[in-house]
Amino acid sequence: MTTETKYRVIGTRPLRPDGVDKVTGRAIYGADVVLPRMAHGKVLRSPHPHARIISIDTSAAEKVKGVLAVISGRDMPDVTGSVAGGEGGDINMRYASNNVMAHGKALYEGHAVAAVVATSPHIASEALKLITVEYEVLPPVIDVRKAMEANAPILLDDLRTDSGGVKSESASNIAAHLVAEEGDVEKGFAAAAVVVEHEFTFQTVHQGYIEPHACTAEWRSDGQITVWCSTQGSFAVRQQVAAILKHPISQVKVVPTEIGGGFGGKIPVYLEPVAAMLSHKAQRPVRMVMDRTEVLMATGPTPGAYIKVKMGADADGKITAAQGYLAYEAGAYPDSFIGAGMLCLFAPYKLTNVKIDGFDVVVNKPSSTAYRAPGAPIAAFACETVLDEIAEKLGMDSLAIRELNSAVEGDWRAFAPPFTRIGALECVQAAIASDHWNTPLVKEGADGKKRGRGAARGYWGNWDGVSSAIGRLNPDGTVSLLEGSTDIGGSRASIAMMFAEAFGVEYAQVHPSVVDTDTVDYNDVTGGSRTTFGTGYAVYKLAKKMQGEIVEKLAEIWEVAADAITIDGSCYSSNGHSATITQLAKLFEEHGVHINASITAKGNNTSGAFATHIVDVEVDAETGKVEILRYTAVQDAGTAIHPSYVEGQMQGGVAQGIGWALNEGYFYDANCKLKNATLLDYRMPTALDIPPIETIIVEVPQPTHPYGVRGVGEVPIVPPTAAIANAIYDAVGVRLHALPMSPSNVWEALESK
Amino acid sequence: MTTETKYRVIGTRPLRPDGVDKVTGRAIYGADVVLPRMAHGKVLRSPHPHARIISIDTSAAEKVKGVLAVISGRDMPDVTGSVAGGEGGDINMRYASNNVMAHGKALYEGHAVAAVVATSPHIASEALKLITVEYEVLPPVIDVRKAMEANAPILLDDLRTDSGGVKSESASNIAAHLVAEEGDVEKGFAAAAVVVEHEFTFQTVHQGYIEPHACTAEWRSDGQITVWCSTQGSFAVRQQVAAILKHPISQVKVVPTEIGGGFGGKIPVYLEPVAAMLSHKAQRPVRMVMDRTEVLMATGPTPGAYIKVKMGADADGKITAAQGYLAYEAGAYPDSFIGAGMLCLFAPYKLTNVKIDGFDVVVNKPSSTAYRAPGAPIAAFACETVLDEIAEKLGMDSLAIRELNSAVEGDWRAFAPPFTRIGALECVQAAIASDHWNTPLVKEGADGKKRGRGAARGYWGNWDGVSSAIGRLNPDGTVSLLEGSTDIGGSRASIAMMFAEAFGVEYAQVHPSVVDTDTVDYNDVTGGSRTTFGTGYAVYKLAKKMQGEIVEKLAEIWEVAADAITIDGSCYSSNGHSATITQLAKLFEEHGVHINASITAKGNNTSGAFATHIVDVEVDAETGKVEILRYTAVQDAGTAIHPSYVEGQMQGGVAQGIGWALNEGYFYDANCKLKNATLLDYRMPTALDIPPIETIIVEVPQPTHPYGVRGVGEVPIVPPTAAIANAIYDAVGVRLHALPMSPSNVWEALESK
Repeated sequence: MTTETKYRVIGTRPLRPDGVDKVTGRAIYGADVVLPRMAHGKVLRSPHPHARIISIDTSAAEKVKGVLAVISGRDMPDVTGSVAGGEGGDINMRYASNNVMAHGKALYEGHAVAAVVATSPHIASEALKLITVEYEVLPPVIDVRKAMEANAPILLDDLRTDSGGVKSESASNIAAHLVAEEGDVEKGFAAAAVVVEHEFTFQTVHQGYIEPHACTAEWRSDGQITVWCSTQGSFAVRQQVAAILKHPISQVKVVPTEIGGGFGGKIPVYLEPVAAMLSHKAQRPVRMVMDRTEVLMATGPTPGAYIKVKMGADADGKITAAQGYLAYEAGAYPDSFIGAGMLCLFAPYKLTNVKIDGFDVVVNKPSSTAYRAPGAPIAAFACETVLDEIAEKLGMDSLAIRELNSAVEGDWRAFAPPFTRIGALECVQAAIASDHWNTPLVKEGADGKKRGRGAARGYWGNWDGVSSAIGRLNPDGTVSLLEGSTDIGGSRASIAMMFAEAFGVEYAQVHPSVVDTDTVDYNDVTGGSRTTFGTGYAVYKLAKKMQGEIVEKLAEIWEVAADAITIDGSCYSSNGHSATITQLAKLFEEHGVHINASITAKGNNTSGAFATHIVDVEVDAETGKVEILRYTAVQDAGTAIHPSYVEGQMQGGVAQGIGWALNEGYFYDANCKLKNATLLDYRMPTALDIPPIETIIVEVPQPTHPYGVRGVGEVPIVPPTAAIANAIYDAVGVRLHALPMSPSNVWEALESK
Repeated sequence: MTTETKYRVIGTRPLRPDGVDKVTGRAIYGADVVLPRMAHGKVLRSPHPHARIISIDTSAAEKVKGVLAVISGRDMPDVTGSVAGGEGGDINMRYASNNVMAHGKALYEGHAVAAVVATSPHIASEALKLITVEYEVLPPVIDVRKAMEANAPILLDDLRTDSGGVKSESASNIAAHLVAEEGDVEKGFAAAAVVVEHEFTFQTVHQGYIEPHACTAEWRSDGQITVWCSTQGSFAVRQQVAAILKHPISQVKVVPTEIGGGFGGKIPVYLEPVAAMLSHKAQRPVRMVMDRTEVLMATGPTPGAYIKVKMGADADGKITAAQGYLAYEAGAYPDSFIGAGMLCLFAPYKLTNVKIDGFDVVVNKPSSTAYRAPGAPIAAFACETVLDEIAEKLGMDSLAIRELNSAVEGDWRAFAPPFTRIGALECVQAAIASDHWNTPLVKEGADGKKRGRGAARGYWGNWDGVSSAIGRLNPDGTVSLLEGSTDIGGSRASIAMMFAEAFGVEYAQVHPSVVDTDTVDYNDVTGGSRTTFGTGYAVYKLAKKMQGEIVEKLAEIWEVAADAITIDGSCYSSNGHSATITQLAKLFEEHGVHINASITAKGNNTSGAFATHIVDVEVDAETGKVEILRYTAVQDAGTAIHPSYVEGQMQGGVAQGIGWALNEGYFYDANCKLKNATLLDYRMPTALDIPPIETIIVEVPQPTHPYGVRGVGEVPIVPPTAAIANAIYDAVGVRLHALPMSPSNVWEALESK
């Protein structure tokens, strides 16, 4: 459904600049950096989910031949204050410091308590075993509702509940209680013909990026710290490393390597400050690489949660009221992205009576962080399955009720101004018109397995943030384009395309590269679906600035007035003179003229992105196994800069959503110990679990972007869990109110029906 | 004699930013780059100084386990044309290509004829031995005068003598015959009371940088080539690699590492295109590192030469005429910097009747290249010893005759406009006033060894060239300063000082770094004494541009007119508002304002630098060994930005000059084979050979630079050889007309006296 493009470069599908490097194994990732005299760091982790650290004896480890230094929490500076954390709000630096190296208490199984640097990783691993830690084991709490109880074990003695700026008097595991409200829900429910309310529970789920965290750090004798790492935001790493180490930010340089996936999980630092501190002690560069178990136990998964949703509609299917109660597990330290969950919960719908209560709650699990549309998928699961039940009770088509109630420009949303122009309705309508929705489903397979179809919607409120870039016209007419945005999903290509479009050149003439924090000005993280929007906006402005410089220099050379020069694509003309960019580049070289410019810009993202998904499933009633038969994702991309990468994001989001829906989750035993911290036991979907994902790109341009771009990376993970749950109900008549909908859970639900 | 400074930062002596890294062994040099799957290249070199290559059989080498590819000249593209070579004029790319890998003919012993890439450097070395090269050995010619003879063996069949644009009809070893002329020398000599004429011969001498050539290159499947190397000019490497490989320049990125000395010898490429081609064949990154013998045999030393100088003066000592005949050995390919030698030959003197003939001649030696003030030291040796003899014959003080005849503003020089304001006379006068010149020399040591004092002058016509830089104001008030100029002698410090001066901040607030060719716009090589001048000029303009941006943004925030804002150092004020840069940086961060700018600028260096040196020596008549007792170097720095580094350049130049004077030279046997291609046999001075060098900095500001900077790196190597020769004469009464003045040569001269 991509509309006829009015663009020259935008909307085409060129090769990505980093593609060949990546498929030939030549790209340099976090663990690939080698420096002379490099040493290797390893982390000792707490075996207890909650324990006071009484003492740490590192003397035996320090005596091992090849061990260069051993550190623990006492070697890290005491830090206070916070740094800007981008979309997720400010980062409390004491908590961040305590998370990378426990001070006083271990708050989750896997919490770092000490680290060793040695001449080889094997020596470092062996030395870890010689560190003696004396613990006072404390009772843990890993369930959000239990953690909210008055007599729950308290994780953080200084944590007070923040309720709209008012702090609780005593310590609590509830970090914050947020409220979003509009109209009068009681009145709304009273006007409803049908009201449905359910409780939902969600497990902790991990992003599952393919590359474990890895970094190399060098702290030189003159105080200069350089960190090479796989990150979503080199400037975020710079800020956090500087703050945790109490080091001047201008003496920290972060060099981003290629990144093997992040999905939000590579915004916080884990190894970087530890590697830097080990480098300081050892006087050598230090490389640290996590294994998969460390990644699962000690990085930042998405919160487990308890959600209650109540919605009412009148006899025509018009929603009269919606109410939500969201309690998210922040893990060891605040925060759980509860605000984002509240924003996204009911966002696809036009609501006049709404109330949402949100709670951010610490528990003895790894400190949660962003995971693709953080907070939104589980909220959508609750809203979209409840709405599905309302449609069923009213005898309405499930997409018809969604079309009827769709939010449009001017409608209310939580914590943000009303929507500007959005494509929410257009996505539902495109789904209704789709081949998938109009192809009848045979409700039973040949082997008697039941089949069902479900649909669901999702919203993500794209961020804008600050982006920086530098452009330089080369003598051969190509442009070197330096970007501060790390490239996770092909943004070097999409950004170069927008620059090429704006600058009037071909895509192949633009050579993009991602540079370090010393090279380019401040740049927010690649996250919040902001990069194509925000960095695209910056390079658009950069292209215009460079065109202005060209006109100025050309006016001197041609001896004409600057405003007498016209630009048509790559061609500059005036008064009989005419030259393409390539000819100009040569002319400028002859005249010793250099065209280069830098830009730092912040766009203004006023709306966000919507998706509507349709899925067909087949349920094996004997085993409870759910198979995905067909999947169609409809999404408003604003303008699809590189349609293949938009489709790739949609397909990737769905794939992760299928994993979340059917298999993924942290499993804890009775002692609150994680039982599945390997990829054999933490079951992510493989290629065999995922059918081809059909995509329909809707293009309702974002009004505040020169090319109408909306972020596309996150919203496709929002609808899948609910769409699949609705399809399972359609197939076998049971509604599930918890994830994952694994074979055993589905089987149990079928048994108890 | 440094004058009272009017500057805040300029003239102080802060620590250099790269110092700690270098003294702690952490700096990354050419051989320190490691990449995943990196392979290692080695070069097979010709054992013959002149031979036709009949065939190369690489089949046995290719079969060795671990060998990934073998290349020879036939694997390199045929190239024509030239690229800009900076100060040395255009580089003939076919010659440059043939020099890195012989095509058809080997023109010097050590000429590369094939290269192997293997999984280890040891396997590559072993495989070299299995390459069979069939040579037709040709008669070599390694002496410039023999090479000029009509029946000499011809090195390059296509080479025609260029005499003022007119080409010879037949092939010749004389690449060019240049003439510089003013007035009427015959008339001048007729007016002279005394005329002295001598012939001089000079050996090939090597720069002797401590770090051998090293690089790592990666040619990716998508055509992107990245080269990491130790070089004086990353953009020069980019141009040459692109031209030799016939590759688009925008697909070549050069990352300069730290450099362990260059002195002009690290401007041409040797290994880089070969490593890239090997990478292309092996599909891996390839590292290549020369050993010292390869450096001496197969890189670019300074030319051997034959010089004849005739000068005449009237009875008052006024020079009436000067005539020179300079024939320089270019080595295997043109050119020998003959033009620079001619420019510098008589430059310190006011001349009205002058004629200089210069010849650029190919011989079967490694292709010569720049070595610190290329061409000047041997020219000065001839002029300054002849002038010394004239003074002696007239009974004049040797510095008095130099003062009397000193060039000043408006005087003629070869190949360039008349001098603007120069400090030539001031340097002689400072030498005359020096403690050294005014301290009587005891003419005989306690052991009867004779002592003598000599003086000499030198000139180097500093280059300007193009420099690029990027500046960025950080939120903490520091500035990140990205430079395209590679830093050989502390230029990160001196450039940062000039930026700090111009921007009104402290030196410690400026964080300079040298960046790659993708990051910054075009930047000429660090050579020709241009960097402090030219890059300093660029960052001065950059600072003013950033101040302009600050004023513009501040006007918006303060709501005042931009022209109502005044700048006093780091303090900006207007209408009751006042803030320092550090406060502004914070203010800008709060307002989301980013100050960053890029600049590409070319200064205009209209004069050059002069030096006058004084030396005391003691000569052991029994052995011919010369010892340096005291040495004083006087030099016009224009303005000494960082006086310690000016002194360091002066001392370093003198140290190399002492080596050149007393010991260094390529020694060939009767078969034209090099006999001393190791540092045991090629005798460079050690710390034991060099006394503390006293320095006197004269400051006559260069009129076209905002801070009056003159280049200081090269001129201090110009006077030492002549000063020492004059001192030897003063001690033992023999005039030497060849270098080195080694014990055996001095002893022979004493014997034949």
